[in-house]
Amino acid sequence: MMKSMPSTPRPSTQETIAHLKEVPLFSGCSTELLSRLGSVARLSKVPKGKVLYQKEEQASWLYIIRHGWVKLYQETLSGEEAVIDILTDGHMFGEGALFHNGTYTHHAQVVEDAELLLLPFALLKEQIQKESSLALAMLAALSAQHRRQEREIEHLAVQTAPQRIGCFLLKLCTGNEKDIVLHLPYDKTLLAARLGMKPETFSRALNTLRKETGISVSGASITIGDIQRLSDFSCSACSSTFPCEE
Amino acid sequence: MMKSMPSTPRPSTQETIAHLKEVPLFSGCSTELLSRLGSVARLSKVPKGKVLYQKEEQASWLYIIRHGWVKLYQETLSGEEAVIDILTDGHMFGEGALFHNGTYTHHAQVVEDAELLLLPFALLKEQIQKESSLALAMLAALSAQHRRQEREIEHLAVQTAPQRIGCFLLKLCTGNEKDIVLHLPYDKTLLAARLGMKPETFSRALNTLRKETGISVSGASITIGDIQRLSDFSCSACSSTFPCEE
Repeated sequence: MMKSMPSTPRPSTQETIAHLKEVPLFSGCSTELLSRLGSVARLSKVPKGKVLYQKEEQASWLYIIRHGWVKLYQETLSGEEAVIDILTDGHMFGEGALFHNGTYTHHAQVVEDAELLLLPFALLKEQIQKESSLALAMLAALSAQHRRQEREIEHLAVQTAPQRIGCFLLKLCTGNEKDIVLHLPYDKTLLAARLGMKPETFSRALNTLRKETGISVSGASITIGDIQRLSDFSCSACSSTFPCEE
Repeated sequence: MMKSMPSTPRPSTQETIAHLKEVPLFSGCSTELLSRLGSVARLSKVPKGKVLYQKEEQASWLYIIRHGWVKLYQETLSGEEAVIDILTDGHMFGEGALFHNGTYTHHAQVVEDAELLLLPFALLKEQIQKESSLALAMLAALSAQHRRQEREIEHLAVQTAPQRIGCFLLKLCTGNEKDIVLHLPYDKTLLAARLGMKPETFSRALNTLRKETGISVSGASITIGDIQRLSDFSCSACSSTFPCEE
């Protein structure tokens, strides 16, 4: 049975198809397939804090983020939470269940108010088996995720804690201008967990980063005066240069 | 042009097909497709130390390990090596190039003498587009890799250094008997890098693990007297229990 989700008034199929077309996963699909998916997809506004699914739960939906932030996590046997990823606009999640007995492989929770596109899992599974264009698009999407994870493992292996924070900030920068003011997208405790640090390590590392790169920190606001200095400091311990492909 | 590889005398197509059938990726493929792949696949014995490919190089082969160990790695801008993964029997690599302009996404080097099954990249790409059974099998294989990487990120985020070593040793244990003697499959410096540690951290962590779990260490040999004690210690900071699914 499909789990109910708090959902906004149902958009028209045309509107949903337009949303689907924006997602790289569906950009190469036929109009016919898009119509079939568009007629059953849901658009849902989900408030911060909502747990979308639990690990091992039978999968009802595949999710695509239109706006907002979603945390994927595991719980260890001793009860600690391990943050695997925090995703935002354009990212897909829940697809792991396609090849894992139809059950989700981790927990998922909305960490900042989100607008999500939901596709019924059973239909999607059926269509992937029928439509090779969708299977190939899904392969490309999984392959991109794989590269993202490889980069993540690389960072956890060789970057220092201040460099990992610097790298995270650089990914939030869209331009190259002077005096960029950023607002951290979610709270610092969660950010520390996302970067694989204890909160006290995070505070010390942020302080080191401030001294080394001249950024200034005021609550959740961070001002980057010299983006070159920040990227020189952070990207020296990475195989990619700023701005990186992600 | 395909890059030449040191290769053993060409096995018969029937022999190669038999090898392909052992690989989960090809287990669901038609006899016709297996014959097509089997007639062009190569079996290659590759000595320790050989670099198989460099990052950004045009992909010639997709690799499957029959025996041995292969390291995937990146080089950071400051020249440090970041070990992303060390793979063994049954693992596939090089497939990232399928969706990355046909170029490899990392470097690969044989770290212990290996026997590899090589499939011509161009043919494989063509067949994935034609044969939905192969596209689906590739999706399942990528999805399994994705879960392995999620577990890796979880470990790097929450396990202590001694727990990470304990977890690595547990994966080498095949049974539950008493006094298991293991031989580390590759040298300790590489193992440290694989686990995201500096060599000196690795030595301290191995010492802590010895005290906490009663294992004994002599060069590359490790004796586990009480596997339950080792798994209690290591798996408490993991979302899975011993023996885990991988």
